[in-house]
Amino acid sequence: MTLSKRIQAMPYSAIRKLTPYANAAKKAGKKIYHLNIGAPDVKTPQVFFEAIKEADIDVLSYAPSPGLPELLEATSNYYKGIGLDFEPQEIVVTNGASEALFFVLFTLLDPGDEILTCEPYYANYFSYFTQAGVSLKTFPTSVENNFHLPSREVIEEKISPKTKCILLSNPGNPTGAVYTQEEIHMVCQLAKDHDLYIIADEVYREFIFDGAEFVSFASVKEVQDRVVVLDSISKRFSACGARIGSVASKNPDIVRAMVKMATSRLAAPTLEMLGATALYEMEGDYFQEVREEYQKRRDCIYEELAKIEGVQASKSAGAFYTVAALPVEDAEDFCRWLLEDFDLEGESLMMAPAAGFYEHSQDYKNQVRIAFILNTQDLKRAMHILDEGLKAYKAR
Amino acid sequence: MTLSKRIQAMPYSAIRKLTPYANAAKKAGKKIYHLNIGAPDVKTPQVFFEAIKEADIDVLSYAPSPGLPELLEATSNYYKGIGLDFEPQEIVVTNGASEALFFVLFTLLDPGDEILTCEPYYANYFSYFTQAGVSLKTFPTSVENNFHLPSREVIEEKISPKTKCILLSNPGNPTGAVYTQEEIHMVCQLAKDHDLYIIADEVYREFIFDGAEFVSFASVKEVQDRVVVLDSISKRFSACGARIGSVASKNPDIVRAMVKMATSRLAAPTLEMLGATALYEMEGDYFQEVREEYQKRRDCIYEELAKIEGVQASKSAGAFYTVAALPVEDAEDFCRWLLEDFDLEGESLMMAPAAGFYEHSQDYKNQVRIAFILNTQDLKRAMHILDEGLKAYKAR
Repeated sequence: MTLSKRIQAMPYSAIRKLTPYANAAKKAGKKIYHLNIGAPDVKTPQVFFEAIKEADIDVLSYAPSPGLPELLEATSNYYKGIGLDFEPQEIVVTNGASEALFFVLFTLLDPGDEILTCEPYYANYFSYFTQAGVSLKTFPTSVENNFHLPSREVIEEKISPKTKCILLSNPGNPTGAVYTQEEIHMVCQLAKDHDLYIIADEVYREFIFDGAEFVSFASVKEVQDRVVVLDSISKRFSACGARIGSVASKNPDIVRAMVKMATSRLAAPTLEMLGATALYEMEGDYFQEVREEYQKRRDCIYEELAKIEGVQASKSAGAFYTVAALPVEDAEDFCRWLLEDFDLEGESLMMAPAAGFYEHSQDYKNQVRIAFILNTQDLKRAMHILDEGLKAYKAR
Repeated sequence: MTLSKRIQAMPYSAIRKLTPYANAAKKAGKKIYHLNIGAPDVKTPQVFFEAIKEADIDVLSYAPSPGLPELLEATSNYYKGIGLDFEPQEIVVTNGASEALFFVLFTLLDPGDEILTCEPYYANYFSYFTQAGVSLKTFPTSVENNFHLPSREVIEEKISPKTKCILLSNPGNPTGAVYTQEEIHMVCQLAKDHDLYIIADEVYREFIFDGAEFVSFASVKEVQDRVVVLDSISKRFSACGARIGSVASKNPDIVRAMVKMATSRLAAPTLEMLGATALYEMEGDYFQEVREEYQKRRDCIYEELAKIEGVQASKSAGAFYTVAALPVEDAEDFCRWLLEDFDLEGESLMMAPAAGFYEHSQDYKNQVRIAFILNTQDLKRAMHILDEGLKAYKAR
């Protein structure tokens, strides 16, 4: 009795693989600062819970497969409010952006087809590539260049007759890169010229710093039939545990395919969809305060990392991650050591080794992804522990 | 720009494909009795909603990937209460039994591997076979034999070197069959002899009529490392909209693989897991009343169908479905006609054409699946409409 080859080939989550060590450390009484996972500490707006409490339901039956009509409407209104024209019938609600990605991969690619993305990419993408049986091709981006896109020629080199689509997260996870108008248009032109779909993971759309402009792939009219937008309320409203995401497209064939996928798994959870609707219907600029808070954190982490000898980090323009090169050979070993063998006055920290975010992971073993999802005081403390940890690790 | 071959090959849900016609009929003022979908009308126990209302959550963060510890504990206790020994760490919570099936298929089979099941089978299985890229092989069961299993030889004929597992729903969807101790042991022996896994979909476990005994595949010690149990709270607690299911196995390799799959999609929805925990923690025999109600309905539908000329239906021993052969050539055409062109005093009914539940669908075009999920008064009325509809359809 053996398991499938594909489950054996699927990696353990780069973000959660050290969790057992963190749990052991906490059990032993150590305090751990969690910078490994993008789970914001901002309070979930109470309207989410209120909407669910107010729901008067006798029989919790299946919701319509594409989502509750009121949530589709509210999501459409949200999109229109930020200048993106998606009608309710062009949106399908999913179990987080994760399910959205699986739906899209299954729909646009056959096994063996190629998907193009930058490295580093969001590590969980790879699990979904494996599940959908599609092949990954990457082009490089670098910490020195704040992870902006390389030239068109560098990307084009990786396109083959089997390439069906290009997937980009913008703002970037794990990089914090926000693509310029020029970069967006270069990718759109490339997609037209090579007949590619564009899968745009824009779940961090509101997390943009220094007043920069965010340009959605969905705003480029010339390629609107090629674009599929993945989205989620997880980060936007600090509601990761709701598992409510969506997929949107102006291409009716794609939407019909998404509905087929949605129907096969019957429905998304009803109550969480009610809560999500209330989030989208909130008045006022909820995001401004959140954005300001995250910008403070971005500034803090960037300054603190710059103080540590031998560390090179990108200055994130968006999202709430930064990738940092550490003065160690093997960041995974260092991160495990921080949890198992090190503490500063009973405290340590957890980061995600970044190798799992790279196709060519051997070349990036010294990098970590840091999620700046704690308040600045905790971030400062965590960076101090990192500094002391690096010294002690070197002195072993 | 084309979509993938596999999404094009994936059928629309046999259960929901006529929904647009039902919606149009309702819009035109017709009352439709829905017997097409297994969405029970029994009230969801209020403890589900109360547990969620009482939850005091500031930040709705990701739950642990395998599920909330309290739900794993409660599910384990439920299993132990019915004589099945599953520890919390042998269970992984999923988004309904649907996700559980995908996890298992991906884990046990590679693309091109074969899965063996009876026909008719639950139609949505086929979507998941397509998504996992596995090949379906079926052996026949028949309405005349109340859909019990054929002899070992008939099943064995369909086993090839590529066959990796046998999947059975028990009690059966869409058949209502409940397998005897002898049938269960025959399948277990077969699995041992041919080195197969057994995927046991037991979501209707509590819906057993006439005091019959339910034998779980998980109760057979000799094959416990081969058995994976799919489960869901949807039918058990009339909580379809919660999308909470689970997968359980005594085989630690399988459980580790399930956790890997669960981690790739991060988590199941937190609030719905809190509600599910409360359902499992209910005192007293919640099921007895529900079971009695469904037995009344089963009796009612069986009697009413027997009165209609030319109809042959199985007597369901469990679940809440029956498959009936109608005196029509094409049940899909008839079902659509019932929605579009027929009414009895402004009322009509919706059933699921059963061809979508068969591998050899051409041979079973005269069958429908009927879900007896309405009260007996409504069921009687619906069967009267069916009777009159059949007469009018014939007389066109």
